Amino acid sequence: MPQWDHFPSAGLATFLTLHDIHQATTEFTPPPNGHTTQHLPHAQNESPDTPVRRLIQDTRNKGYETICLPLTTEKWKERWEGMCLLPSSPIKEEPESADVDTKKKEIARAAELWRARPCFLPDEALQQELAYASYLSIHTVILPAPRNRSHVASYARIINNCLKNTPYLYLSVRLPIYNPTILHQAQAHTGSGLGLAVSPASTPALIVSPDPSTPSQSTQNGISPESEMNATWEMWDVIRSICDYNTRLTLTLDLTPPLPSKLGVLSKWAAESVRYIFLPASTFIANTKGYPVLPKPTQSFIRDSMIHRPTVILAEVTSDKHSRGGEAAYSQYIKFLEKTSAVVRNAQKEGTVEHFAQGYQDYLQAPLQPLMDNLQSITYQTFEQDPVKYERYEEAIFRALMEWPVEGRIVCCVAGAGRGPLVARCLNAVQRSGKEVFVYAVEKNPNAYVTLQQRKDREWGDKIKLLFGDMRSLDIPEPADILVSELLGSFGDNELSPECLDGAQRFLKPTGISIPSSYTSHLAPLSSSKLYNEARASKNAVESLETPYVVMFQAVNILSEDKLGCGAKIQECWEFEHPRRDGVMATVVVDERGLPLTNNHNVRSARLRFWIPHAGVLHGLAGYFEAVLYGNIGLSIHPHRKDQISKDMLSWFPLFFPFKEPLYLPSNSELQVSIWRLTNERQVWYEWHAESFLTVPLAPPGVKSDSDGTPTSGAQGQGWAASSPLSVPSPLADDDGFFSSSTTAGGNGGGASGSTGGEGSTIGTRRGSSSSGIRTPGRVNRSVTLPHVFGGGGVGGGASAGAGGGFEVVKIGHTSLHNPGGRSSWIGL
Amino acid sequence: MPQWDHFPSAGLATFLTLHDIHQATTEFTPPPNGHTTQHLPHAQNESPDTPVRRLIQDTRNKGYETICLPLTTEKWKERWEGMCLLPSSPIKEEPESADVDTKKKEIARAAELWRARPCFLPDEALQQELAYASYLSIHTVILPAPRNRSHVASYARIINNCLKNTPYLYLSVRLPIYNPTILHQAQAHTGSGLGLAVSPASTPALIVSPDPSTPSQSTQNGISPESEMNATWEMWDVIRSICDYNTRLTLTLDLTPPLPSKLGVLSKWAAESVRYIFLPASTFIANTKGYPVLPKPTQSFIRDSMIHRPTVILAEVTSDKHSRGGEAAYSQYIKFLEKTSAVVRNAQKEGTVEHFAQGYQDYLQAPLQPLMDNLQSITYQTFEQDPVKYERYEEAIFRALMEWPVEGRIVCCVAGAGRGPLVARCLNAVQRSGKEVFVYAVEKNPNAYVTLQQRKDREWGDKIKLLFGDMRSLDIPEPADILVSELLGSFGDNELSPECLDGAQRFLKPTGISIPSSYTSHLAPLSSSKLYNEARASKNAVESLETPYVVMFQAVNILSEDKLGCGAKIQECWEFEHPRRDGVMATVVVDERGLPLTNNHNVRSARLRFWIPHAGVLHGLAGYFEAVLYGNIGLSIHPHRKDQISKDMLSWFPLFFPFKEPLYLPSNSELQVSIWRLTNERQVWYEWHAESFLTVPLAPPGVKSDSDGTPTSGAQGQGWAASSPLSVPSPLADDDGFFSSSTTAGGNGGGASGSTGGEGSTIGTRRGSSSSGIRTPGRVNRSVTLPHVFGGGGVGGGASAGAGGGFEVVKIGHTSLHNPGGRSSWIGL
Repeated sequence: MPQWDHFPSAGLATFLTLHDIHQATTEFTPPPNGHTTQHLPHAQNESPDTPVRRLIQDTRNKGYETICLPLTTEKWKERWEGMCLLPSSPIKEEPESADVDTKKKEIARAAELWRARPCFLPDEALQQELAYASYLSIHTVILPAPRNRSHVASYARIINNCLKNTPYLYLSVRLPIYNPTILHQAQAHTGSGLGLAVSPASTPALIVSPDPSTPSQSTQNGISPESEMNATWEMWDVIRSICDYNTRLTLTLDLTPPLPSKLGVLSKWAAESVRYIFLPASTFIANTKGYPVLPKPTQSFIRDSMIHRPTVILAEVTSDKHSRGGEAAYSQYIKFLEKTSAVVRNAQKEGTVEHFAQGYQDYLQAPLQPLMDNLQSITYQTFEQDPVKYERYEEAIFRALMEWPVEGRIVCCVAGAGRGPLVARCLNAVQRSGKEVFVYAVEKNPNAYVTLQQRKDREWGDKIKLLFGDMRSLDIPEPADILVSELLGSFGDNELSPECLDGAQRFLKPTGISIPSSYTSHLAPLSSSKLYNEARASKNAVESLETPYVVMFQAVNILSEDKLGCGAKIQECWEFEHPRRDGVMATVVVDERGLPLTNNHNVRSARLRFWIPHAGVLHGLAGYFEAVLYGNIGLSIHPHRKDQISKDMLSWFPLFFPFKEPLYLPSNSELQVSIWRLTNERQVWYEWHAESFLTVPLAPPGVKSDSDGTPTSGAQGQGWAASSPLSVPSPLADDDGFFSSSTTAGGNGGGASGSTGGEGSTIGTRRGSSSSGIRTPGRVNRSVTLPHVFGGGGVGGGASAGAGGGFEVVKIGHTSLHNPGGRSSWIGL
Repeated sequence: MPQWDHFPSAGLATFLTLHDIHQATTEFTPPPNGHTTQHLPHAQNESPDTPVRRLIQDTRNKGYETICLPLTTEKWKERWEGMCLLPSSPIKEEPESADVDTKKKEIARAAELWRARPCFLPDEALQQELAYASYLSIHTVILPAPRNRSHVASYARIINNCLKNTPYLYLSVRLPIYNPTILHQAQAHTGSGLGLAVSPASTPALIVSPDPSTPSQSTQNGISPESEMNATWEMWDVIRSICDYNTRLTLTLDLTPPLPSKLGVLSKWAAESVRYIFLPASTFIANTKGYPVLPKPTQSFIRDSMIHRPTVILAEVTSDKHSRGGEAAYSQYIKFLEKTSAVVRNAQKEGTVEHFAQGYQDYLQAPLQPLMDNLQSITYQTFEQDPVKYERYEEAIFRALMEWPVEGRIVCCVAGAGRGPLVARCLNAVQRSGKEVFVYAVEKNPNAYVTLQQRKDREWGDKIKLLFGDMRSLDIPEPADILVSELLGSFGDNELSPECLDGAQRFLKPTGISIPSSYTSHLAPLSSSKLYNEARASKNAVESLETPYVVMFQAVNILSEDKLGCGAKIQECWEFEHPRRDGVMATVVVDERGLPLTNNHNVRSARLRFWIPHAGVLHGLAGYFEAVLYGNIGLSIHPHRKDQISKDMLSWFPLFFPFKEPLYLPSNSELQVSIWRLTNERQVWYEWHAESFLTVPLAPPGVKSDSDGTPTSGAQGQGWAASSPLSVPSPLADDDGFFSSSTTAGGNGGGASGSTGGEGSTIGTRRGSSSSGIRTPGRVNRSVTLPHVFGGGGVGGGASAGAGGGFEVVKIGHTSLHNPGGRSSWIGL
């Protein structure tokens, strides 16, 4: 599939059949100069010298960048099937006539002779074809889907072997977006087999499946709609896992089946390497004028997919399936979808994060360590370009000054002034407020301090005073009323803002305020083949999978969803507040300079419970932060809230906590994530771990039970919480026992704060603690007891009740503990 | 815990309480010489110079080898709790009186001051204690169990940290064998916490749980008996997984709870590193005479555990719980259990595999490669000691000669004669038969050939003719009637017997027979922390986890069990038959010397389905073989059949196929194992892979369903097999489609033979193909369709039916593909 040029988002390919090639051969007239054996590339205007080249030129003239050709002819298939396959009837089950037996032996002997020179096995037959494709400089070979779930492991093993044996070729497995039977039947009709070929387009007669969003129909077949939507993804998961996430293995998503109206179930494909989208003309419907258009769900799916820059393979486009528009109508329509795609528009619009991040999507960066390292000027420059962050800071400072309750001179201190952007914003706010304010600016980077001095001389004059030194050890001439800092990382505290502000708090008046006044860390479980591969591509894969990364997510899927009683899609881990009003700092013993003796009060831990509606593979955790600067002015990279709080802010991409081994999570499972923020005398680091759980029938089928089958939901619902000498605590239940108090909050109970449920949409309403001054209890129970999650027999409606004793939650898997002891940790203290 | 000497199987320890130490201190009189500060070890007869030493000497005199002492005093616990824990009421949930607030702050400040010099966190408090234990040269510290399932991850993270920070100390987690609530309540009563200590023995009042084998009672609590039995093991699994299978982390199994009468559920502990068994006097019951004895299930469990050489810790033995026997009765009883333990007796009895294998238990050996390597004389010698194998061979040859249908001279050929044991047995059989037989002996090892020539000169004379060379290329003077070989490996074909006999078959008459006439390979899923750790302990852990090993299993647990409709505990993979009567060799094209052109016909594959009744962690596959020598004389290392077929045969330990990542398998799950025997021009190797599945409610609780809840079991039962455009094939269903024929049998369909179900107990009845000459179909479907396994609503009795649409099987996990492309493969061709 030669690719001629780069198309902005979607590439366009056309699918040629053997019939097309045959026809081209019949109609072909050699060019006058008769150079039919010319094998060199020729100029665009030269006449093509072979029928296939003519076909390619025609295709290019129609606007396609890529062409898909079947590599296998019917003749080859026939020969291969004869050589490598036996007739499907079992051998010698019953005595056979000598004739049949002799014929079979003859075929088998012929096949064996053929395999012998050169010798190959059935999967090597595929290898022969791939070797030929490689010889022809074909870039990618698209393979037909496995025909049967039970043989996927064998299919995958062969693909893996082929990837090893053809080192440059890309292989793409063509899979229907769900419901593989459709494609299988199509293949059966056309006789396509394992052989190398783009499998033929389905004929319209086969696309008869009703709307899959109607569950009752498929439930009749004993398979839930969820499983049905999941079936081909699960095949893909086996294939790419057995192929160890080989980067030369991609997916060709076949959009022949009509898509469900709810696309959520399809979001998992965003986390996979979908390189091609196969779209036959039969998938199009006719609009009122007779032109081909796509059904709404397929439209949406393709628009959303544009962000991954797929190549759309149009098939059957010359077969006049629609009355108007001709062949060109199909590709024009795809280009229309591209132009009207919100993700494409966003990426093209200046000032958006998507535009700013071009080229950085899914690229792993080590988080900055501004406390340990002195940043370069260019790093400051990059972040100073943020159009939103500094505006938010200025607004916060302005409001704080306007609402300042005491008359007279106000002392402001910018802690960590860098090259001065916050100082400048601070002075703007002062000017706007009309108040009498004196500003101190503290900076420990001697190089940035040069710039600061220049700016003071040129711009600021004696409105401010510069102070050189680390805010944790420096003394300032007078205590401040307002402490302004921006020491935040993608996960809030990961650039050691809490530790730095512990030091800076020394020079804040008891009545003073900090901007930011608090920040929270948030997590969500994430799937991404891309990020998994990127993280382990490093030389030291073990260590690189123990380190969090800053990443602009693109080919990722957040696996969780909101669920009543379980928790939100994205959940809060913990919070830091400045100045500490939670009683913690009151108990922290400080030395003669006012610095804490230990960093114990900055230890945090959280245990979060996520609902996983659709099967997926966990590759890591997405980390976000949200900060309250002042009042209801904040900064947020929380996906659901950032647009309301700090739209188009560029300074932070999310954090990615990788897992070493991918963890398979079935549909409707629950994931428990534990994460710790730990510290010793020299370091601060995170450790993380996950366990998965699934609801199963309490009395499993096939296991005898004393129950008479009467639904006893009420008793079971209570059973989870009941405690008797015989009852084991539910694996998910929580209590306020000894252990929680010793690990949750680093000894003071103030650590693991916040609650998982009910994240509101504005900062003001959400953070009740900020306005009322009364914090939520330090050891608030993050976990709900079990009946609220999966329920006993009585939860989830009558339909699911009473299975001989209801349901229980069983553990089904877990990850390793990550980053134990703090490898690659931030050295900050 | 100093260990004085080595006890044959179980070690004995006594558990001393703080009260014991206090009493010893009160009663202590310093020895006349007054050397109370003597710190050096002293001779046995010298008087002890401290109360604790006196106590230790007394204990040793009573026959204990090990002593357990609490390291923590109540005073220390109090201080630690004050320092590291906050009062359990939430902070500032409601405004508190200034007094209470001030007091809390005071405590917290004191704690913080104390942490600061030296600074430590709550888990570092434990570390302080462990460091002190290490300073005292304590070998092992036993830790109390985590109190709550939901905090196990935090508990484990701290243990992991402690293991890293105290490099020589062993840590042992004391866990009740099931039902952790018993122990928790005991701890709550005595106030024992996380602190370093052997947690106190439970008081008898707490052991009130009824027989856990009665499921109805626990089902009332919403937790299945299976989950209850599983709960502490699951905790242990999290702990040792988070600690990355650290070899210094062991288990102390607390036998305080009464054991269930069915011990199968406890077999999982055999796969874990149980180092200590904690046995309080309260677990003992009084026999009719008033002496302490153990309940039958506990007796059995301890007898079986003896093979793992645990140390039994006796507690409360001085508390006069039983009227007769005094303290000594308890340890005498344990010694009695040891002497009457079948596993101990077996290991001590000469001639058993267990005795022969002393020192080789769980030791990983690379399989022999006798075709590639020329074996050493000592290797031959080891295997020639087998008392059973050669006897079986002689008997097989004798019977073959006696039943030989044609009168006159019989030609016998021993292919692979080694140092001659089979030749000698062959000549014995000839003599016993009284027939006229000439024997050829073929050997390719030039060194062994020296021995053969000596034996011919000294023993055999001209009854035989020696031929030097590889049986695959050699020509012999006349064709043979009987071909005798012993080229078998632990997995049957893994020492390349099929490939070698392909060559030797050239000189077998068309009517001739081979001894062995066939052999089969068998697999079972296995759990073993020990073997997992051994396999990855190698320098190149990645490669070492891709290679099968020969191992005498001991600390292992086979995870599967027989289940009607699913498959046996141990299942057959494939079979090789000699001479090939299955029509395969008829189609194999041979060269001018009669050798096959390709090795394609020796490719095999199998997909097996195992039922996993109890949760466990899959670490690998156990491989066995069974061979039919002649008629119903055979060799077998199949655990269920070896004693009937070739009892006390020593030559083969099983094969262990490791998995790189442990795979968690929940109770009542299904495991699908795929395994392939693959070949190219130079190599033969295996690849293996596994996937796990679990039954879940079809309409999961919390998900809306259109179903009215009416049980529709009939329809669902059919649904699994039904095929409509909307129905996805069940993930476990099989068919005879395209793909199975291309991968199952290497192109000829004769490969994957045999069936999983109904393994009989004798070779004759089992192997119908041997007697009737009609083989089972080559592509027999190894998998049963789904309703037979987990069933729709209708299977498994009325109790489990009708949960709003029955159940469906969902995938929950998988391993990597192992050994792709044949790393560390046998180079044989």
